[in-house]
Formats: sequence, C-alpha cells, structure tokens
Amino acid sequence: MIKLKITIGYKEGVEDPEGLAVKNSLKLLNFGNVNSVKVLKVYEILIEDTEDAKKEAEEMCDRLLVNPVIHDYRIEMERV
Amino acid sequence: MIKLKITIGYKEGVEDPEGLAVKNSLKLLNFGNVNSVKVLKVYEILIEDTEDAKKEAEEMCDRLLVNPVIHDYRIEMERV
Repeated sequence: MIKLKITIGYKEGVEDPEGLAVKNSLKLLNFGNVNSVKVLKVYEILIEDTEDAKKEAEEMCDRLLVNPVIHDYRIEMERV
Repeated sequence: MIKLKITIGYKEGVEDPEGLAVKNSLKLLNFGNVNSVKVLKVYEILIEDTEDAKKEAEEMCDRLLVNPVIHDYRIEMERV
C-alpha cells in the first residue's frame, strides 16, 4: 500500500476566509498576540501499490481535490 | 515570532464524512485502487514571542479550534 499525503492551501495573495475568521475569533478570545492564521487541508489517501503513484495523486488533485485558480498543493508519498 | 502548527483530525472510530465523500468521488472517477481517505485540517498560526507558546496553543484548541468529543490534535512549534 502507498500513503499519499496531499496538502492543499491558498495561493499567495488569495484571501483565506477561514483563516481570517479564525484570526478574528482568536482576537475576540483575547489572544492578542496572533499575527496571522493560514488554513491548510490534508488528504491522507491509502491506495494499493501502483507503478506511478505520483502521477495518480496529481490526477486526483486535477480532477477533484484542487481548484488551480486559488489553491497550491504538494504531494508526499510513503510506502506503508 | 513563533509559528504554531496545529493539526486536527477525527478520533479513531469517529466517522470522517468528508473523507468518505472524497473516497466515493474518487471511486466514481475510476480511481479504483483507493482504500481509504482521511481528512486533516492544519492551522498555521503566527504569534508574537511569548513565554509559553505550547500552553497558548492548547488554550486555542480548547476554546475554539477543537471539538474534544470527535477530534484529536497535535501541536508543533517553530521559531521563525
């Protein structure tokens, strides 16, 4: 089995609405020293062994997981 | 500045609805070799230097970010 770890975040310059909301909420809760909040999403996908797992992960991103207009992503792989 | 990296996922045994939805969608897109999908959320929070950043991060989790009934979390810290 191969574990794909796909980490998705907003591109530099794209507003991160959830990060902004969390930052504001933390300020309201008196965490006054918060400077910025970024939110990332991680998909840990377990797949059967395959010849080209990297390519398959990229296809998953292109076809389902990532919006290339606003998201950056990176792929890590590990045999488990 | 200190960068807190807080990673939140579902507890063992708690259903991960988004992971399940992504798994089903990947199957429909002919990624037949997908075995399981787990979704994690990562908050990267930049704060001003403080004496006890670990404790502050734990407080953020308790008071805002984490639902202890269903979530597990881990905290990493890095001076930046």
